[in-house]
Amino acid sequence: MIRVGIAGYGNLGRGAAAAVRDASDLELEAIFTRRPSAVAAEVPGVSVKNMDVLPEWEHRIDVLILCGGSAADLPAMTPALARRFHVVDSFDTHACIPAHVAAVEEAAAQSGHTALISAGWDPGLFSLWRLYGEAFFPEGATHTFWGPGVSQGHSDALRRVNGVADARQYTLPIPEAVERARGGVAAPLRPEESHTRLCYVAAEEGADRREIEERIRTMPHYFAGYDTKVIFLSPEELAGAHSALPHGGTVIRSGGDGAGMECRLKLPSNPRFTGRVLAACARAVYRMAEKGRFGGYTLFDVPPVLFSPAERAELISRLL
Amino acid sequence: MIRVGIAGYGNLGRGAAAAVRDASDLELEAIFTRRPSAVAAEVPGVSVKNMDVLPEWEHRIDVLILCGGSAADLPAMTPALARRFHVVDSFDTHACIPAHVAAVEEAAAQSGHTALISAGWDPGLFSLWRLYGEAFFPEGATHTFWGPGVSQGHSDALRRVNGVADARQYTLPIPEAVERARGGVAAPLRPEESHTRLCYVAAEEGADRREIEERIRTMPHYFAGYDTKVIFLSPEELAGAHSALPHGGTVIRSGGDGAGMECRLKLPSNPRFTGRVLAACARAVYRMAEKGRFGGYTLFDVPPVLFSPAERAELISRLL
Repeated sequence: MIRVGIAGYGNLGRGAAAAVRDASDLELEAIFTRRPSAVAAEVPGVSVKNMDVLPEWEHRIDVLILCGGSAADLPAMTPALARRFHVVDSFDTHACIPAHVAAVEEAAAQSGHTALISAGWDPGLFSLWRLYGEAFFPEGATHTFWGPGVSQGHSDALRRVNGVADARQYTLPIPEAVERARGGVAAPLRPEESHTRLCYVAAEEGADRREIEERIRTMPHYFAGYDTKVIFLSPEELAGAHSALPHGGTVIRSGGDGAGMECRLKLPSNPRFTGRVLAACARAVYRMAEKGRFGGYTLFDVPPVLFSPAERAELISRLL
Repeated sequence: MIRVGIAGYGNLGRGAAAAVRDASDLELEAIFTRRPSAVAAEVPGVSVKNMDVLPEWEHRIDVLILCGGSAADLPAMTPALARRFHVVDSFDTHACIPAHVAAVEEAAAQSGHTALISAGWDPGLFSLWRLYGEAFFPEGATHTFWGPGVSQGHSDALRRVNGVADARQYTLPIPEAVERARGGVAAPLRPEESHTRLCYVAAEEGADRREIEERIRTMPHYFAGYDTKVIFLSPEELAGAHSALPHGGTVIRSGGDGAGMECRLKLPSNPRFTGRVLAACARAVYRMAEKGRFGGYTLFDVPPVLFSPAERAELISRLL
């Protein structure tokens, strides 16, 4: 059994813990969190520790799954912990991935550890689809559509608007853009051409709804330039109808000569799926570390066979 | 430049040669065939040699792409040539793959060569989709649909029927079966439940069409048990409307809780795409051999980054 630790216990930590418990070759050794008593009450029978004692667990954890956030936690947390543990993370700030890879590579290689970063669905499974698509259809164009699903980053952005009590943002691919991608349009479609943004907002009492809507529509990077729809709901309606975190999307590689591939993902729960990918990555990291393959890796560097609990011979006969 | 040789020059050899010529880091060093004069006339400017002289090219070819057939050629050809060359093949007789891997592994490992076998779309890209699907959705069911497209094996089977001058067989997925797979049916669907077989047949003059149709419908393994439709055409109609070799299909992994992935491939020309995959594999084999990774491999064993001509850092920043 591979002894897995989980650092951070929000939605993603819950998903990873469930995935580890479901796997026949992984063992949930301990959860590390900043609020151990609350978490311990939630998961009876699991060892729950304060994040501060992590260093003491160096020899009792084979792989540590880091379930912190990409903005505040992982940029420092992953390199620091990669000096003591084999680690997996789901760092997903696309623009900062190269710097993160470099920082983690240095920490892990120097200390003889193995780190696999930016695993999940995008970056993650979608990245793999993009890479295989490009390698096997060298001429053509790749288009990524996100949704229909809840963007947590955009929901957070809505909640930061003055007068907003709570909010949920759905990203929806524009069907005509999907058709253009399928038809083989060569120029990359801009995200604003490809997606609409549907915002469910619960306003604070007495807040000016017209002003809230205006602030949302003009928010740079997040909503400006997009076809954005704002719908006001009561806090109860929002909590009742929009508490799930579904997501998914589609990667289309059009190969130029009418050839192409289209891969679609549908997730009733985004963190549950990401947790499963992280658990499979913990297995791969353990196996790479056992062979002395230390350093910082991404999904692009990992032979697919390492993600499965099954034997290679079985996979070849059953799935190849 | 990686110097690539191609052994065998039918439809697949043509596809592989085109893909090698299109790649910026691959160089088509020579084509080896049993009919060099005919092939030389087809590809002016390319070095075309008799298959017999292959051993003399041992030090002039970095990777040899084997474009023989899975039934008659590759079972002996790949292990034999893996003693002298780094090789790639598209061996696709699913039931015999484990034995083929074992034979190639022995030959390649003993002689210090690298061999990557069973590459193409199925086995190939579809196998990768099945493996990632199972690893990232550990609970659920995987369904593979082939088509719409031309099955060359089934077309050959039709041509062996008494009284058949020429024939082309299209495999078509049954839409209701695709819907069941999407809906998450757990039991694997049998091929007969999932596909219909559409046969275009040109009969010889004076042949009994009813007898031909009866023989097709009852042919074990190929058509018996399937919803099979036989349509008679003149040889000219058949050649005119059905000379292309389109294919494709869909892999569906339903994850149990409404989650799932669906990956679809559409190929106007089956051998052209397989040729592209083989060219990408030649690149991967060369890189593995350079690092001393000798032996027999499948796509399951290869880090995806090795298939792309681009640098790892670029792939991470652009596609991850």
